[in-house]
Amino acid sequence: MNIAFIGLGHMGGPMARNLIKAGHKLDVFDLVSRNVEALTAAGATPATSVQHAVARAELVVTMLPSSPHVRSVYLGADGVLAGVAAGVPLVDSSTIDPHTAREVAAAAGKHGNAMADAPVSGGTGGAEAGSLTFMVGAELALFETIRPILAQMGKNIVHCGAAGTGQVAKICNNMLLGISMIGVAEAMNLGVALGIDPKVLAGVINTSSGRCWSSDTYNPYPGVMDNVPAARGYTGGFAGELMLKDLGLATEAAKQAKQSVAMGALAQQLYQLWGAQAGGAQDFSAIINLIKHRAATGVQS
Amino acid sequence: MNIAFIGLGHMGGPMARNLIKAGHKLDVFDLVSRNVEALTAAGATPATSVQHAVARAELVVTMLPSSPHVRSVYLGADGVLAGVAAGVPLVDSSTIDPHTAREVAAAAGKHGNAMADAPVSGGTGGAEAGSLTFMVGAELALFETIRPILAQMGKNIVHCGAAGTGQVAKICNNMLLGISMIGVAEAMNLGVALGIDPKVLAGVINTSSGRCWSSDTYNPYPGVMDNVPAARGYTGGFAGELMLKDLGLATEAAKQAKQSVAMGALAQQLYQLWGAQAGGAQDFSAIINLIKHRAATGVQS
Amino acid sequence: MNIAFIGLGHMGGPMARNLIKAGHKLDVFDLVSRNVEALTAAGATPATSVQHAVARAELVVTMLPSSPHVRSVYLGADGVLAGVAAGVPLVDSSTIDPHTAREVAAAAGKHGNAMADAPVSGGTGGAEAGSLTFMVGAELALFETIRPILAQMGKNIVHCGAAGTGQVAKICNNMLLGISMIGVAEAMNLGVALGIDPKVLAGVINTSSGRCWSSDTYNPYPGVMDNVPAARGYTGGFAGELMLKDLGLATEAAKQAKQSVAMGALAQQLYQLWGAQAGGAQDFSAIINLIKHRAATGVQS
Amino acid sequence: MNIAFIGLGHMGGPMARNLIKAGHKLDVFDLVSRNVEALTAAGATPATSVQHAVARAELVVTMLPSSPHVRSVYLGADGVLAGVAAGVPLVDSSTIDPHTAREVAAAAGKHGNAMADAPVSGGTGGAEAGSLTFMVGAELALFETIRPILAQMGKNIVHCGAAGTGQVAKICNNMLLGISMIGVAEAMNLGVALGIDPKVLAGVINTSSGRCWSSDTYNPYPGVMDNVPAARGYTGGFAGELMLKDLGLATEAAKQAKQSVAMGALAQQLYQLWGAQAGGAQDFSAIINLIKHRAATGVQS
Repeated sequence: MNIAFIGLGHMGGPMARNLIKAGHKLDVFDLVSRNVEALTAAGATPATSVQHAVARAELVVTMLPSSPHVRSVYLGADGVLAGVAAGVPLVDSSTIDPHTAREVAAAAGKHGNAMADAPVSGGTGGAEAGSLTFMVGAELALFETIRPILAQMGKNIVHCGAAGTGQVAKICNNMLLGISMIGVAEAMNLGVALGIDPKVLAGVINTSSGRCWSSDTYNPYPGVMDNVPAARGYTGGFAGELMLKDLGLATEAAKQAKQSVAMGALAQQLYQLWGAQAGGAQDFSAIINLIKHRAATGVQS
Repeated sequence: MNIAFIGLGHMGGPMARNLIKAGHKLDVFDLVSRNVEALTAAGATPATSVQHAVARAELVVTMLPSSPHVRSVYLGADGVLAGVAAGVPLVDSSTIDPHTAREVAAAAGKHGNAMADAPVSGGTGGAEAGSLTFMVGAELALFETIRPILAQMGKNIVHCGAAGTGQVAKICNNMLLGISMIGVAEAMNLGVALGIDPKVLAGVINTSSGRCWSSDTYNPYPGVMDNVPAARGYTGGFAGELMLKDLGLATEAAKQAKQSVAMGALAQQLYQLWGAQAGGAQDFSAIINLIKHRAATGVQS
Repeated sequence: MNIAFIGLGHMGGPMARNLIKAGHKLDVFDLVSRNVEALTAAGATPATSVQHAVARAELVVTMLPSSPHVRSVYLGADGVLAGVAAGVPLVDSSTIDPHTAREVAAAAGKHGNAMADAPVSGGTGGAEAGSLTFMVGAELALFETIRPILAQMGKNIVHCGAAGTGQVAKICNNMLLGISMIGVAEAMNLGVALGIDPKVLAGVINTSSGRCWSSDTYNPYPGVMDNVPAARGYTGGFAGELMLKDLGLATEAAKQAKQSVAMGALAQQLYQLWGAQAGGAQDFSAIINLIKHRAATGVQS
Repeated sequence: MNIAFIGLGHMGGPMARNLIKAGHKLDVFDLVSRNVEALTAAGATPATSVQHAVARAELVVTMLPSSPHVRSVYLGADGVLAGVAAGVPLVDSSTIDPHTAREVAAAAGKHGNAMADAPVSGGTGGAEAGSLTFMVGAELALFETIRPILAQMGKNIVHCGAAGTGQVAKICNNMLLGISMIGVAEAMNLGVALGIDPKVLAGVINTSSGRCWSSDTYNPYPGVMDNVPAARGYTGGFAGELMLKDLGLATEAAKQAKQSVAMGALAQQLYQLWGAQAGGAQDFSAIINLIKHRAATGVQS
């Protein structure tokens, strides 16, 4: 199949590569020419513009950093809708706000193109391994059409409902993730300050009602687990600034929906505080260091 | 074995019954005479005072509502230490602050009695079924001594470390539970307000990084799970006012340990707000109704 | 002077009227024809479009509900910049985000029009009485040019710095206002719950370090002051939904500036919660009812 | 008059000195012998115990660090009530929780001694200058009796109501102070990050609805005011750890009163975070440095 792939960064690059490996012909575009060259070396055909990239596409996939990029790549004078044939399905895998996702999908629909929002989880590791989870917002027919292609880049392809619901699922999950990560950080720090061994505490939590992914799979307290960012100085993983971005999307969507999210908003502000103090490049579990008492020396109560 | 059991309420009553069933002779005391009569009917010997109850005890178990009660039952003029023989092990299963637990254990130690804090999780259902989890703070020798008896009232008997660490484990776990329950409530409400089906959203979360006990085992959104309080009008379960009590213990302990717990403190205030509006008798997952938009009618973004 | 006035709602209507009273000739436009008719009856000339309204203007004043409106009224195909003569000064009195204010001012500058952001405080009462405060972001020369005109609609005309700083001053002040109003509400409710007379407590605060406008000029506790919304069932005043809008602008601007505003964000979420429960039409001091214990009957400690 | 004065620290020392200057005979006690010696040098008679100090007193004044100290100094075996004559009025100027204040006052009442809680504001400067504010919880007759004596140590002597209400007024005021100080810190930091001059912003706020003591009298942003801690590296003033203590008293009292104080609780946790990072010795307005973007270089939006 001829696939246009736009946005070839840390996530988009390996995703496009997996499509090439699966036998598709790719027309690719990115503002960073080095990214285009890398994909060209892997067998893709470079395009000089978005419009050019989508000209002969039977499917368009985009992976972009934020809502304004998506709006401009799809709706701009030189954008996807200006160049793509009617009837070609469109898949945006960016993580953006549901409102923009729905607006762009509606514009695409008017142009004769069914469009899906399909944000992913799994990080760059999952992108390379082809083991991403796709959360797909699309009409059922479109979902069935694109599912086999997405399955060449990911493992779990979940249908979340109509356009926009992929984004909704992503930001709701990640807001909860941000909240529970800080919750685990507070609980672990508190326990240790009160004199319990962190491994013992994690053991109790992981078999009890406090159990969560941030505790049993990605524990932020150093020494509790191997093979997590906390075991390697918070390198790798999911950068704090990306968590901050997702929390910003969640609270903005909540504002528009008139839904109070006090814990989500506080999580956002604490990640902002941590980012201002330490930069946002470390893994998001490093937030535990924001709230660790710097002179802590064990039991104080 | 002769066991003194003091505190025969919703939790203590069924726990004491399970000890009788296991073949022990119980001397029981409670300020509420009806509670004493119920246990007497089940085979226990009623005592007229704490001192009287512990006079011939080979083991003392207490289950009391709060720190001042524990202090007074153990240290009062007519209390446990005034009546119990030296060498008899003491087990307090109340949920109280770790500081008090350690002070009372230290006083008991001076009197020649090793003392364990052994708060439980599992609720009245677990107390009746004998399936409680005990989080035990005690020297190892004492832990080994009391473990077989605790196993007659519970399933998981976890050694958390020295005196006080049982309480530490309990309040850290429950603080995290309170945080993640509100987090799930916000995520579910936000998702539905943004147009996703709640069962679909819960499905995504439960297989992704937002996964937690409050979502996959005790989801607060009506219609997502059967056999949870949300499926029966938030009756049964773990009362909101008990969650509020535990959050109060956690933030108080954090204050003494000079450990910041912003999310825990906000969870406490939201439970207080909910309690003020709706009373605290409903299950703690009913907090979802505090933040649900009362005029919500679906997609608003 | 020929003045084009666009946006004739609760604020813009009386502001435009004051310009007519001061002797100016007004060309007016609003999407709501009733608003245009009301101003026409007061002596203004109705226009059929924005472009038409600004055609002969020597000064343009706009008063619009939100950023997208400002963007479209100024930059749209039929907008201000499409119709106004080069050199004519532009004044936007809407409360919007500083980022948009600066973008629109930059576009106006390229077109040859100096533009000021000049949001107001003082409410509809101040608009009618001509006693508004204008917070003006503009180059000094422009500020000096427009100051006499603004003084016909307001009392305090404050120069805040270059373009955008009028909006910055407005949202920073109103974020602090939202925070301190909830702070006063908590302090008053807590004091009364602990047994102090609310008038006595307000008296102590107002002569001590807790003193603030929300306490000494606009106290939210009923019975403490006359002539405030709390004395008349929270009618009149500054609607809760407008406070919520301003808090939304502040946290959005903070997100873009990477500045943590935990208290501001929590204030926003509490206003959102209150809005969801009670609607947002009441005066913003009615937030005190969100947190009042509904069964409170005096001293409980 | 013979006055027993117990607690001769940074506050109690200068207060006692002012009573000596006013002509009273003082019997003084403190656990720190150096404090006793300093007062002895100033003309007081040293006592060897609390009981001894109050033996011939016609009035007792205490100034102690926290609730447990007050409880023990008044109710202990060797305490005030064990040594004082019936009918002698008692004045506690410590800042403690209202619940303890009421319990101790009730115990004193049973012993035949009317007791007032009379916490102060004004700091060590006010203690030395005799310009403190006293917030007095006492029956009216007792208030009239002690007012002239308090006026020898302070300027404003405010009757807040019955026993306990002095403490209520103090902690409600100081909770609001903590909230508004962080609010000002957020507003000032946000404004500067968005490009407004801090002096201009403070000027707008101080003449508008964000006006508060933390902004117009004690502004935390360096360079805005002279003669405030921000102008001298946050030395002097009211230590952050004392603000943290008062916020802890406020949230604890709120817990007992079942009153939600979300902003107060968040303020406490932010002060705790700041204390953990920077120690608590700096003036409480230094909290502005917790939330200042450390790489901030002006306009970022």
